[in-house]
Amino acid sequence: MEMRKPVAVDKAVQRVMKHALNGSVEFLPIHRCFNETLARDIVATHDVPHFDRSPYDGFAIRSRDTIGASRDFPVEFEVIEEIGAGSVATRKVEAKQAVRIMTGAQMPDGADAVIMLELVREIERDGKVFIQIRRRVKEDENVSFKGEDAKQGELLVNKGTKLNPGIKALLATFGYTEVPVAKKPVIGLFATGTELLEVDEALQPGKIRNSNSYMLADQIKRAGGEPRFLGILPDHLEGSYSAISEALKEVDLLITTGGVSVGDYDYMPDIYARLGAEVLFNKVAMRPGSVTTVAAMNGKILFGLSGNPSASYVGFELFVRPIIRKMLLSPRPHLKKVRGVLGENFTKANPFTRFVRSRAYLEGGQLMAVPSGKDKSNIVMSLASANSFAILPGGSRGYQQGDEVDILLLEDDEGSAWPW
Amino acid sequence: MEMRKPVAVDKAVQRVMKHALNGSVEFLPIHRCFNETLARDIVATHDVPHFDRSPYDGFAIRSRDTIGASRDFPVEFEVIEEIGAGSVATRKVEAKQAVRIMTGAQMPDGADAVIMLELVREIERDGKVFIQIRRRVKEDENVSFKGEDAKQGELLVNKGTKLNPGIKALLATFGYTEVPVAKKPVIGLFATGTELLEVDEALQPGKIRNSNSYMLADQIKRAGGEPRFLGILPDHLEGSYSAISEALKEVDLLITTGGVSVGDYDYMPDIYARLGAEVLFNKVAMRPGSVTTVAAMNGKILFGLSGNPSASYVGFELFVRPIIRKMLLSPRPHLKKVRGVLGENFTKANPFTRFVRSRAYLEGGQLMAVPSGKDKSNIVMSLASANSFAILPGGSRGYQQGDEVDILLLEDDEGSAWPW
Repeated sequence: MEMRKPVAVDKAVQRVMKHALNGSVEFLPIHRCFNETLARDIVATHDVPHFDRSPYDGFAIRSRDTIGASRDFPVEFEVIEEIGAGSVATRKVEAKQAVRIMTGAQMPDGADAVIMLELVREIERDGKVFIQIRRRVKEDENVSFKGEDAKQGELLVNKGTKLNPGIKALLATFGYTEVPVAKKPVIGLFATGTELLEVDEALQPGKIRNSNSYMLADQIKRAGGEPRFLGILPDHLEGSYSAISEALKEVDLLITTGGVSVGDYDYMPDIYARLGAEVLFNKVAMRPGSVTTVAAMNGKILFGLSGNPSASYVGFELFVRPIIRKMLLSPRPHLKKVRGVLGENFTKANPFTRFVRSRAYLEGGQLMAVPSGKDKSNIVMSLASANSFAILPGGSRGYQQGDEVDILLLEDDEGSAWPW
Repeated sequence: MEMRKPVAVDKAVQRVMKHALNGSVEFLPIHRCFNETLARDIVATHDVPHFDRSPYDGFAIRSRDTIGASRDFPVEFEVIEEIGAGSVATRKVEAKQAVRIMTGAQMPDGADAVIMLELVREIERDGKVFIQIRRRVKEDENVSFKGEDAKQGELLVNKGTKLNPGIKALLATFGYTEVPVAKKPVIGLFATGTELLEVDEALQPGKIRNSNSYMLADQIKRAGGEPRFLGILPDHLEGSYSAISEALKEVDLLITTGGVSVGDYDYMPDIYARLGAEVLFNKVAMRPGSVTTVAAMNGKILFGLSGNPSASYVGFELFVRPIIRKMLLSPRPHLKKVRGVLGENFTKANPFTRFVRSRAYLEGGQLMAVPSGKDKSNIVMSLASANSFAILPGGSRGYQQGDEVDILLLEDDEGSAWPW
């Protein structure tokens, strides 16, 4: 039987990242994009505000006309015009004149200050409207100046940033009708194994339904890629080989689950050999997922994940995710690593580093992580509530509640540059 | 001028929640759903495993036949059959017989234990295959039993839970080809104001592009709803009234931005009156967003958010989000509230509770929050990097770096039951 040499996790990740692929750019209409990653830096295409404007409802005046104004000696201004938001004054403000102005409206020529509506008294006389001002108004008072919030050409958001509602507001403000986003890589998904049934098939003795492809499709989407279901491959070398070599023409990356162990029906090693793919590693010093195999050929990467759901889940997050995020131009393509406290004992010792599927949560501002169910790698249930992996380095002892550990966050978008 | 009485934030939220609407269920094909919310409890439709199986590659035997086996006195078994994963043995295992079995395959009748491949020596004699076993194998050794991981009928995931890759794996395992999910509520979006330009229009003096609708559309999507762009309404009472009453027939909830203040061009109060809608409040003791108005009529809710981007952003998250999440059957519809530490001084005092757009992050397992830019409510830039609001209760003093504060998380899916 073939003896495989386990590679340390960080070394294995490094080997994969050496084959990282470049992402490409596409332009999406602003109303169609959501959660994509910016493929270009976003700059201000004009000043904000792009004109001097009033932040309040009130009256635009010349501040110097209020010199000497007081409760006892109000100064009177004639209201010569009223401008709503979106319209502009037609006349210049001269001495002792005022323009009624709405929040957000452009300052009229001649005026250098705004007095708020509630601070003046309006009076009508001879068919004209006047206001009385009872205090000194300073130059520039209540004026938002052109370029105060942003200057034309200013860098607003770096490429590689994931879109969010606030960034969307910026894109709209600056007229980005077409948004430059990183094109989602297409990732093919094969499940291998004669024991697999389709989801809509009834159970049969000795067989189980294919759950990995559905799980991985959503992991791909969560990472920002586009999954392509390619179906189930029974344990048959010729058929699998030709299906896989055909699929490689259509996808950016290919994931298979199962068939990477050293059993009689594990055909993936043979297939890599026939494809002429360079096997980067075929055993990793980790639990679950030690049989994870990654191979590279012609600028494509073939991820041979375990057929075991928990193992393929972990294998995806450690090895496939950073390749996808890199193609999405992220400067931090790996799972975000943070420190936290183990909320429960984990007594099972293991020579290999263990990635324990966990539920991380904040308690009084402190991050805690609790294993999300029995940690046998065939127990799919533990994945449903997992939002993190607690990293328990290999060794001869278990871990205790209260131990400080590294935690990898699964639902975070920020990522880590190099967490190992 | 009308005097409005500000309502405390918690009271305002309470008033809105009294009008919360019920969500409805729809069934989506499993490959089409992603990030939806389960509308039904998910139960195991069969035992897992649904047959006794081998967790390893090896040989299925009768354990009692190994009694007395040792390094010096190996016991020999005849290999009568080989079964791959997915196939089942055709023969019953009798005394001193073994069946070659693959990981995940069903245990043959008669066998009660599995010995791992690497622990036996294979020999061929007279065209038959034998294995030698050199140690005692215990009953049930290396057998995963039917129902060990889950029992038929067992509750796996509660309704109201958002789908994730692990839950998707469960759904596939148990044959949920159609997934019961909460139907996304349809939320109409009007932007009001003569000063607004479409995103593809060139700038004009005194006018700005409509950014609120794009921002809110993504906030709606993030919350789990489906936005419907209804366009820009110029400041015109009749036109706005008829557009809004028509739109109410087509949507579950309606959001307008702008027109809720007490200015001359603020028509929303008149429109609520003409619709006969019950105004729940029209001033909230908070910054930004104090002019937020909510009205209810005929089982629909009209959210009159401020025209100011930051104010409408906050108004959405506090008042609209919980209504959407409730319709998505979430038991924790509000923004998740956690404790954290202010990473910077925030010296501006205010009588009203302030929701400071912040960047929250973990540092050494401790949650920190730093205001994400100048906190003037017209600065849209501060929204782009915000992932949280720091809640700074009103008062006469500012806040210092290191102060412990409540933080509302914007990108969390779990939520809080009642954070106030």
